[in-house]
Amino acid sequence: MFLSEIIFNSSEPLYIQIEAQIIKMIEENMLVEGSKLPSTRELSEILNLSRNSCMHAYELLEDKGYIKVIKGKGAYVFSGFKNKEIGWVIDWDTKISNYGKKALELDIVKNEAVTEKNMISFKSIAPDEKLFNLEQIRRDFLNSISFEGEKIFNYGYAMGYKPLLDKLKEYVKNKGIDLLNKEVIVTNGFTEGFDITLSALTNEGDLVLCENPTHNTAIKLMKLHGLEIQGVDINEDGINLGELQEKLAKNKYKLIYLIPSYHNPTGTVMSADKRMEVYKLCKKYNLPIIEDGFNEELLYSSSHLASIAALSMEDNSVVYIGSFSKILFPGIRIGWIAADKKLINSLESIKRSRNIHSSVLDQAFLYEFLKSGDYGAYLKKARKHYREKYKFIMSLASRYLSSCKIYGEGGLHIFVKLFNIDARSLLDMVMRQGAIFMPGDIFYVDGKGTDTLRLGFSRLSLQDIEKGIKIIGKCIDELSVNHKIE
Amino acid sequence: MFLSEIIFNSSEPLYIQIEAQIIKMIEENMLVEGSKLPSTRELSEILNLSRNSCMHAYELLEDKGYIKVIKGKGAYVFSGFKNKEIGWVIDWDTKISNYGKKALELDIVKNEAVTEKNMISFKSIAPDEKLFNLEQIRRDFLNSISFEGEKIFNYGYAMGYKPLLDKLKEYVKNKGIDLLNKEVIVTNGFTEGFDITLSALTNEGDLVLCENPTHNTAIKLMKLHGLEIQGVDINEDGINLGELQEKLAKNKYKLIYLIPSYHNPTGTVMSADKRMEVYKLCKKYNLPIIEDGFNEELLYSSSHLASIAALSMEDNSVVYIGSFSKILFPGIRIGWIAADKKLINSLESIKRSRNIHSSVLDQAFLYEFLKSGDYGAYLKKARKHYREKYKFIMSLASRYLSSCKIYGEGGLHIFVKLFNIDARSLLDMVMRQGAIFMPGDIFYVDGKGTDTLRLGFSRLSLQDIEKGIKIIGKCIDELSVNHKIE
Repeated sequence: MFLSEIIFNSSEPLYIQIEAQIIKMIEENMLVEGSKLPSTRELSEILNLSRNSCMHAYELLEDKGYIKVIKGKGAYVFSGFKNKEIGWVIDWDTKISNYGKKALELDIVKNEAVTEKNMISFKSIAPDEKLFNLEQIRRDFLNSISFEGEKIFNYGYAMGYKPLLDKLKEYVKNKGIDLLNKEVIVTNGFTEGFDITLSALTNEGDLVLCENPTHNTAIKLMKLHGLEIQGVDINEDGINLGELQEKLAKNKYKLIYLIPSYHNPTGTVMSADKRMEVYKLCKKYNLPIIEDGFNEELLYSSSHLASIAALSMEDNSVVYIGSFSKILFPGIRIGWIAADKKLINSLESIKRSRNIHSSVLDQAFLYEFLKSGDYGAYLKKARKHYREKYKFIMSLASRYLSSCKIYGEGGLHIFVKLFNIDARSLLDMVMRQGAIFMPGDIFYVDGKGTDTLRLGFSRLSLQDIEKGIKIIGKCIDELSVNHKIE
Repeated sequence: MFLSEIIFNSSEPLYIQIEAQIIKMIEENMLVEGSKLPSTRELSEILNLSRNSCMHAYELLEDKGYIKVIKGKGAYVFSGFKNKEIGWVIDWDTKISNYGKKALELDIVKNEAVTEKNMISFKSIAPDEKLFNLEQIRRDFLNSISFEGEKIFNYGYAMGYKPLLDKLKEYVKNKGIDLLNKEVIVTNGFTEGFDITLSALTNEGDLVLCENPTHNTAIKLMKLHGLEIQGVDINEDGINLGELQEKLAKNKYKLIYLIPSYHNPTGTVMSADKRMEVYKLCKKYNLPIIEDGFNEELLYSSSHLASIAALSMEDNSVVYIGSFSKILFPGIRIGWIAADKKLINSLESIKRSRNIHSSVLDQAFLYEFLKSGDYGAYLKKARKHYREKYKFIMSLASRYLSSCKIYGEGGLHIFVKLFNIDARSLLDMVMRQGAIFMPGDIFYVDGKGTDTLRLGFSRLSLQDIEKGIKIIGKCIDELSVNHKIE
């Protein structure tokens, strides 16, 4: 029953009849608490009556407390009336799926210690905002609007924004990756790239391999996909080949996930010949390689080490996942996958089913940023900026964390192995003194690494890095002393 | 082995030793095809040698065809050399999961007829780009940069960009939805909102209910989640209550998915009292309601019909999914879910696991657009624009499609039921004459609807609407005649 359907009689004043009808609708919950009534002008048009009758009716309704007129906004149902049928409370705990519960349990943001104000945080490996050049950004954005106009605000394509895709292919080829029979798809950062890759390749219960420790988001996703994860230890030059060989000989895996450059969390770089050895081993067992290009762009030295995807040349065996969100702007969620055409075809449909496509605005902007040359300039600045911080934290670590083993050849973080000290006890102590870091155990697939920690330094000033490392060093010394006394 | 690790002897010229080392690295695939060498300047710094020796070495390498020097870009490995170990071809068809295959099968974009150039397309229900005001957009974007600065380019929050979230809560409250013990989360459009809701609430094999026909993306997602879908017929005023009651009495469902306003594809609006009846029935069976707010904003008349979420008042039983991508800018992938706090807590963790968060750039821009009042002006313009087209297509339909039953009270499309004509045969014929539409069967959960079609008109000019409807009408008449002759 709509307001427009009121049938008027001739015995009562019109405003009384309007009022009665609205009260009836409110009491029967057809017009519910909080809903907006048409304006008196609109109502008079709908009912083909004078506006005065409508205004009179609204006044009465407000007097009786059925509606509330908010100046400049309109009239709202606000009767305090509660339909007795209402009062249904769902116990959502009983409704949430196992997947939903697991996502909560594995959510590090919700389960790890929170950075308090003024704390020196070594938790983050996000880019330093100081590197962003707002003037460039403004210009690139305006260019993208001028260039594409309204189009960038309407539907795009699951594969990605065409000009960006072309640019990405050029970019990928410059990394030495052969795109013969391969395709590139745009994703919402590495996270979505890895998630849809797992969807496309794995079924619940499948066995998968990775480095141990490894990127905690990757562990979370593999667990959420119900996969059984096995880890291979890593040395200073990357994965332990002997252990890898042994595992491959014993079990059948669905895929292997690897981070060859500036490995997260250890910061190690897999050596060139080890890359080739790993490739040969995977080939022997026909095991697809998912390569995480994490921070590959942040090479600090001039030793140009090719990715596994590059050394696979025309082979179709490597799924390379790259991201601009790690080195450029995380707020712009753009990553990409380069892989065999057939696989990308399936990934495209999965991507479309998840969220249709990535933000065209982000993609058009990123395209301009790459095209204008601002990206090259940014990378150069970023490398210099982070290299300075890296060298600084390494020099401090050798001085103040001399009892620990330090891993990391660059990137945005270093990895620390303690001796006979529990990293979470250290964390408690360090937090009381105003600093915080990421305990290493979250990067392990098997509960190990309780004596390790990751120190992200990308967003910290040199002063804070120094202050923070001193705090951590002091706490380690204290814990070592206590340990000896015990 | 890095370039920096060359050990020089004193018996040979340095440039010969450099050359030999690089050739060795290329032949052993440590420097692979396409990878970039350091510049001669860089190399001379790494090796602490004269730049001349390095330049000489590169010249020799280029002469022998091991590298290629591209002017202004650098030196690349380009030897034509192929490592014999390479040559590994994965048959991805055997590697792609059932989910990956299902996503391909259910991908309408890949499996339905494609719109050719110059065709009049009734397939799309995307917004008309002519409504976008680039000047407003430019201003709102620049404001969002001025207001937030670098922050909008760094990591955001899984729940959403705070100022936008606050604005959304206000917006939701203005729709009459009570947020007591509820929360709002930002998603990448409706699609992601529905996908993560299914992840949070369902397990494979669960039984779920929806209107039949219903939004084809929703059907796809329910199928991809491995759910068993049952549909309830809809009448002109919405879902068939008798059938709903019967089904609820017989089976135990996990949830019901409903589109009460401008239902996709039928365009019907569920009446106010039917909304209440549905609500009471679901309450009786403790069945969570997933309400799709699809195009609710596009109310063409002044009959303010509250959403089911609004009439549930303080209850926590409705999960309301809204989207700006349908009426505003689809290129900006922003939707939202308003639901019970506990459920949103799980959705937040799922969202984070999928893609960390939605584009902050999109969110900051949308916030400015809402704040500036541009949204209100846009809605007003959009309503008028689409209402005109709606009225026009309805008048044409009553004239040229008089043998059909027409559904649709507004929105961006109408729905047509043919009599004794197969919609796909009609589609073939219509396409040959330069128009295309969406066959209705894709909206049904049970293979029905082969005699229906959806006509989206949002992006067509009045001339094209008229031309297209005439083509469809003529084809229907021809098919009817053939039918009678048979």
